[in-house]
Amino acid sequence: MQIHEIGGEHGYIERIRTRFGTDSDRTFLGIGDDAAILPPHDGREVIVTTDMIVENVHFRREWSDPYAIGWKAAAVNLSDIAAMGGAPTYTFVALGVKLDETVENLDALYDGIMDCLGKYGGRLAGGDTNSSPLNLVISITQMGLVERSRAIVRTGATAGDRILVTGELGNSAAGLSILSQFGAAKAAEISPLLVLAHTRPIPRIAAGLAAASTGKVHAAMDLSDGLLGDIKKLCKASGVGFRIDSEKLPRSSELTNAACIGGFDPLQTALVGGEDYELLLIVAPEDVDTVLTAVASTGTLVTEIGEIVEKGCTVLPTDGTGEQEPKSGGWDHFAS
Amino acid sequence: MQIHEIGGEHGYIERIRTRFGTDSDRTFLGIGDDAAILPPHDGREVIVTTDMIVENVHFRREWSDPYAIGWKAAAVNLSDIAAMGGAPTYTFVALGVKLDETVENLDALYDGIMDCLGKYGGRLAGGDTNSSPLNLVISITQMGLVERSRAIVRTGATAGDRILVTGELGNSAAGLSILSQFGAAKAAEISPLLVLAHTRPIPRIAAGLAAASTGKVHAAMDLSDGLLGDIKKLCKASGVGFRIDSEKLPRSSELTNAACIGGFDPLQTALVGGEDYELLLIVAPEDVDTVLTAVASTGTLVTEIGEIVEKGCTVLPTDGTGEQEPKSGGWDHFAS
Repeated sequence: MQIHEIGGEHGYIERIRTRFGTDSDRTFLGIGDDAAILPPHDGREVIVTTDMIVENVHFRREWSDPYAIGWKAAAVNLSDIAAMGGAPTYTFVALGVKLDETVENLDALYDGIMDCLGKYGGRLAGGDTNSSPLNLVISITQMGLVERSRAIVRTGATAGDRILVTGELGNSAAGLSILSQFGAAKAAEISPLLVLAHTRPIPRIAAGLAAASTGKVHAAMDLSDGLLGDIKKLCKASGVGFRIDSEKLPRSSELTNAACIGGFDPLQTALVGGEDYELLLIVAPEDVDTVLTAVASTGTLVTEIGEIVEKGCTVLPTDGTGEQEPKSGGWDHFAS
Repeated sequence: MQIHEIGGEHGYIERIRTRFGTDSDRTFLGIGDDAAILPPHDGREVIVTTDMIVENVHFRREWSDPYAIGWKAAAVNLSDIAAMGGAPTYTFVALGVKLDETVENLDALYDGIMDCLGKYGGRLAGGDTNSSPLNLVISITQMGLVERSRAIVRTGATAGDRILVTGELGNSAAGLSILSQFGAAKAAEISPLLVLAHTRPIPRIAAGLAAASTGKVHAAMDLSDGLLGDIKKLCKASGVGFRIDSEKLPRSSELTNAACIGGFDPLQTALVGGEDYELLLIVAPEDVDTVLTAVASTGTLVTEIGEIVEKGCTVLPTDGTGEQEPKSGGWDHFAS
């Protein structure tokens, strides 16, 4: 079914209201009015992030079904809220959709968005649906709340602090690698875990909230462009350096297997592979146990991988030849 | 200069911070951190809108320079805040930019955004810069504040109310018409006013605030898809109909001239032409003077053009043959 068959853009907005707008309060005015009206909140601080995902840049239609695309668009925004230690509140979805997109695909895309919001927090409160002649574009703005002065920013790291990371590193990049080498069907045979890490990332909301609740995290960010590239940004913002022990990087056995099949380096993949959406947490040595315990209590794997130093970017090698500068610096949309 | 020459995406984010981030407070954390932290606000209600504009849908590069594109992206969002009677606060800008876009063009685009925000309100607090292989996409989320319970929504129109509109109708569509028929250079000779109405719309922030401050506006919206299409949406939301007197529609002499040169119908253009971004204000008969005076005090033209009725959509004709149903219903991205 084509979008114009159900009344076009405005027909589709009405469809979203019908499918998801079960609330009678004024928040849902955002869907169908000029703007959403948000209820007043308690003394917590509002945090806001916006992230756009673009066809053939962040996803490919042949590897990701519409549900996964919607999920990912929501998840990458929720991940930024997690990285601030926040609880998600309202979600705004702007879409650029090809003229011949089917209603079924758009429904599946919204299902992906709504399921991700339903699971990790966030509530659809408004949006904009446009045609985009050449490629699908999804731009989400996600709001959240944090206890006053508890938001975790990037600027608080000091020398001596320890570096923690949630989850495993490199799974998403490995998933992308096998998808691009072998196609969706074969990649799913090799490793559903790696494919899902790439196509349907998990925002670390519970871990971020648990970490923030300790009041002991000096700095944090989520890993979207790869560990090395991202930690450099955090260290630059804090005016410090880092030393990472590559032997400590949490890596899955599936990454190792896929690297063998796909002929890529698993360590480099864990170091520079993008889109893991894990959290980097910077903590004083005496608080490491407190934060590890708090995050682990949410069922999230969390690992100490190195420390903050006064300056310089160092990755301790596995071959025993001494410290070395990392080779590469993470994903950049406009890298030459 | 290409974006990768100044350090790519992150170099450009740093450039934005340097150019516009003069504030020392935490709001500007949004530029360069995972999310913006907004200061607590007084008891007013937060309103939020998001609007995406897409190359070759909402603008064409041959008709709009990057400055105008940035301006328009900001203006269409601010217009939604105006339509709620709100004061703009924070602005979030997500961009999808072609890989070969120049820094100069991106600077000019941001200049357009910032000049529009500077003039009408709104403060850059965060964003996201991506590559978009095929076309430029700008998705802005604009926040605002309204006095509690003073936000003007679409659902409050009742039979007997009068319909007011700010500014002149059809100028933007006439501008688009002469741009597409004659090209940018010749169109600018025919009418700079019409071209600017299309490429650089004015958000009616002051008029919206003045209207809301009277407490007498039953319903409002901004005109993005054309008067007839939009008023139908408002009336549907309120469960009423309308009768518009086409002789009363505020039309510029430039529209009349351009219609003559371009061979289009000026009345139809005023009725169904999109992207005027004027405000439609629905007011009880006894309050019309109050609202007219309040809006006019901001220097904004405002005109009574018809009334709300119990049901039916009617445009009074100019040929004296009796009432008639309007021919067409306004812009839809997915119309067949």
